[in-house]
Amino acid sequence: MIAPKYHVFICTSGRPNGIQKGFCHSKGSVDLVGYFSEEVEDRDLSDDVMITNSGCFGICAKGPVVVVYPEGVWYGNLTEEDVPRIVEEHFEKGIPVADLMI
Amino acid sequence: MIAPKYHVFICTSGRPNGIQKGFCHSKGSVDLVGYFSEEVEDRDLSDDVMITNSGCFGICAKGPVVVVYPEGVWYGNLTEEDVPRIVEEHFEKGIPVADLMI
Repeated sequence: MIAPKYHVFICTSGRPNGIQKGFCHSKGSVDLVGYFSEEVEDRDLSDDVMITNSGCFGICAKGPVVVVYPEGVWYGNLTEEDVPRIVEEHFEKGIPVADLMI
Repeated sequence: MIAPKYHVFICTSGRPNGIQKGFCHSKGSVDLVGYFSEEVEDRDLSDDVMITNSGCFGICAKGPVVVVYPEGVWYGNLTEEDVPRIVEEHFEKGIPVADLMI
């Protein structure tokens, strides 16, 4: 079985039929995929952290939404500045960032 | 915090930039989203099971790939016939379907 320590799902508002439409997408979530990937690579955490773009989670008003499993931590309203905090505090030190949770 | 009992991620090969390209997509994974949704609704499990389409998991040769969190169960090579088994045995009875795991 594949078992990343942290599996990060970033909503990029892609519908099952391929159309990209939604709040997360319009609020820069596609860029977040890149920021997370770079930050994880820079900190040499690629073996522990898997990043996957996802479709809509249904709570668009709180987008961009990012979900981290297996813990089930939900982050919302994320910006570029939040990414290094989540990667350092949550994925590196093991402590989810409480004030970014929804 | 949002906490579905089972959060089902179905790869529909959507890239972060919106382009839909990949093995899972070519093997009917988009239809799987519909089959899972219908089966979950028919069995009145909508409160327990959240279904989200996702981007690529990087193990395309085993597609269509479906991942279930928080357990971290990975299913592969799925067909329409496998969906009622997973919904009944895993989501209804709580026992992951061993022979469909990868």
